[in-house]
This record gives sequence, structure tokens and C-alpha cells, in this order.
Amino acid sequence: MNSFFDILEKLPNLPDDQRKLLEESVKVIKVKKGEVIQQRGDLVRKGYLVKKGLLRSYSVDAKGKEHIYIFAPEGWIAGGLEFDSENPRTELFIDALEDSEVEMANSNLFNHYLSFLDEEALKVEISRLIRRVSVLQNRVISLMSSTATERYEEFLKTYPQIVQRVPQRMIASYLGITPEALSKLKGELVRK
Amino acid sequence: MNSFFDILEKLPNLPDDQRKLLEESVKVIKVKKGEVIQQRGDLVRKGYLVKKGLLRSYSVDAKGKEHIYIFAPEGWIAGGLEFDSENPRTELFIDALEDSEVEMANSNLFNHYLSFLDEEALKVEISRLIRRVSVLQNRVISLMSSTATERYEEFLKTYPQIVQRVPQRMIASYLGITPEALSKLKGELVRK
Repeated sequence: MNSFFDILEKLPNLPDDQRKLLEESVKVIKVKKGEVIQQRGDLVRKGYLVKKGLLRSYSVDAKGKEHIYIFAPEGWIAGGLEFDSENPRTELFIDALEDSEVEMANSNLFNHYLSFLDEEALKVEISRLIRRVSVLQNRVISLMSSTATERYEEFLKTYPQIVQRVPQRMIASYLGITPEALSKLKGELVRK
Repeated sequence: MNSFFDILEKLPNLPDDQRKLLEESVKVIKVKKGEVIQQRGDLVRKGYLVKKGLLRSYSVDAKGKEHIYIFAPEGWIAGGLEFDSENPRTELFIDALEDSEVEMANSNLFNHYLSFLDEEALKVEISRLIRRVSVLQNRVISLMSSTATERYEEFLKTYPQIVQRVPQRMIASYLGITPEALSKLKGELVRK
């Protein structure tokens, strides 16, 4: 998706006053490198669509160690608009790895959006969610049973555009290994 | 869900010939303890709803080690009816940990089911999928950043009914630790 405003394009039957409300609910913000825009425990569910720059979402364990959940370069969404009432609080922090320009929308947009979709569009939404379930299931399987080398190759496929933009220690954090193990693994891949 | 046939109850507008086809697509099968009913790479997507007994789904890594993805006691579904066209092959094996009675349905049921849902029911389906995305996201976060003790406590909450029915080495496999580490961790929990 290039813009949250694309969502509104798909709703020709949306009354003008509703359209105005939704348009106003999307804000374009600038985020400085290092700035934290979501904290664990936040109750307001927001989605951040990256127009320019790079965000990451991550958890922090009991020892204060960071574990990267996703990187979000241009065109990706960090956070989420889907609100799960049984799990209202966010688990993840989000910050910027580069100075970024971001569209910010809250879950009202998604709920309103759903209420104006026709059957065909709802089915498209279901396909999108099934795709996400499938991606997440593969991430779980990969975390459980892939080698670090396989996970690194998967990372390169998923994020070809950011390898040069992210510090090695963060790639290691995404893979769940130490920076030293990552360096060794890359050496082995080069020799292959 | 208690039965795949409940799905058909929710479709009052379903023509009789379609209903008959769907009813015939659900088979009740008996699975012996140890029997493998899904192999990695299978192209036909099936869902197995457990009426009695216990299934598990698991991956096998390059070294032949098993990693348990889910346990499926009574009322749970192993496998999945949702078909993701970008990921057609199953990644997981499914076998029975006890002699089991299982309803087996293939993804035709789900696709037919979707095509007969009205807008309200499609939105319920979207809520269900959002819930699953949320559960899977938490599993990923937990695999990345929880301690083994936290993951064990989560296991007890998720599966209170099966703790006594599953060998310790399988609980360890689900948690991603060795049986020795599990035994030590349980000792520490008792002393607390």
C-alpha cells in the first residue's frame, strides 16, 4: 500500500461527512531517527505507513534486551490498525532507524473502513488476513526450526532494500543471534 | 467449534444440493496413536477438528529434530482450511498423540462457506482472523523474547487440559528447550 488515503478511494459509497472524518484521522508526521512513537502497553492502536525512511518494531525482554519483530521500510506498515478486543494493549515498541516521514492512522479508520465494504471487498480483506496468518505461521516455524543461515537468507529475501541501511547488530537481533555469530555466518556464505 | 457441521447450520440460504456436497466433504475418521495424517509438502489443505483424543502439528528441521507448533485436544483444529495461494504447500506434519476421533474437511468447505456468507458473517470471520493474527504475533514475540519459564506458564494457560496427557519431552519441544531444562524449570517453580 502506498498511502492510507488509497483505502478511501476504494469506498465510492462513503458519505461526504464520513469521508472528511476519515481523511482527517490520517496524519502525516515526521519522525526523527531514534524517536520512539509507540510504547509497550499503549492502548490506542495505531498503524504507521512509511512514506520515506525506516521504522522498526521490537519487544524488550525482562533483561532489557531488544528483539526486532519487523523492519518497516517505504511502503510497509508498522503497528497495526486491526484491534483485537481480547488483547487491547500493544506488546511492541516502535521507533525510527532513519529520519522518516510517516502516515499515522488509528484503528477507527479500519473499523469505519470495514463498515463501508461490500461483500466482494470483505472477501478481499479475508484473503489479506489469511495471507498474514500464513506469513506469521511461517515466521513461528522458522523461529522454531530454521538454522540461523536459513533465517538470514529469508531476511535477505524479505528485505532486499534495507540490508545496507541497518546496523549488523540489529540484523542479528532480528535473527535472534549474536553479532559475532552473524559475522561468522556471512563469512561462511561468502566462501560457499 | 464443536463440529464442522456447525458451519453448515449458519448458512440457511445454502441450496440443498450444495449443502449435500458440503456435508459429504466432511469425513469422520479414526486415527491411531502415532499415525501421521499430514506430511510436509502436501498440496491438499485439510483441517482436522478433534472430537476425541489429541493431535499435534510439528515441523522437522534439517537435522531431523521435531519442533511442536500446536497441540490439538478436543475442540481444537489442527491443519487449516484457509488456503493461501502464495503458499500452497503445507509446512507441517500432523500426527496423533492418542487414539483419536477426528472430523476431516478440505479447503473446499471453507471456500464454499465464504461464498455463502452475508456481510455480517464475513465481518465475524474477519474478527476471527484478526484474533488469530494477534495470537500468532504474540507467539512470535514470546519465541523471541520470553524466558523458558514464561513460555511454560503460557503453555499451562493455553493447554490446562493436556499437561498430564503429553510426555515431558514433547512439552520441552513445544517450548524449544531440552527435557533437562524443563525439569529444572519445574523444580524452580515448585520451590517458589
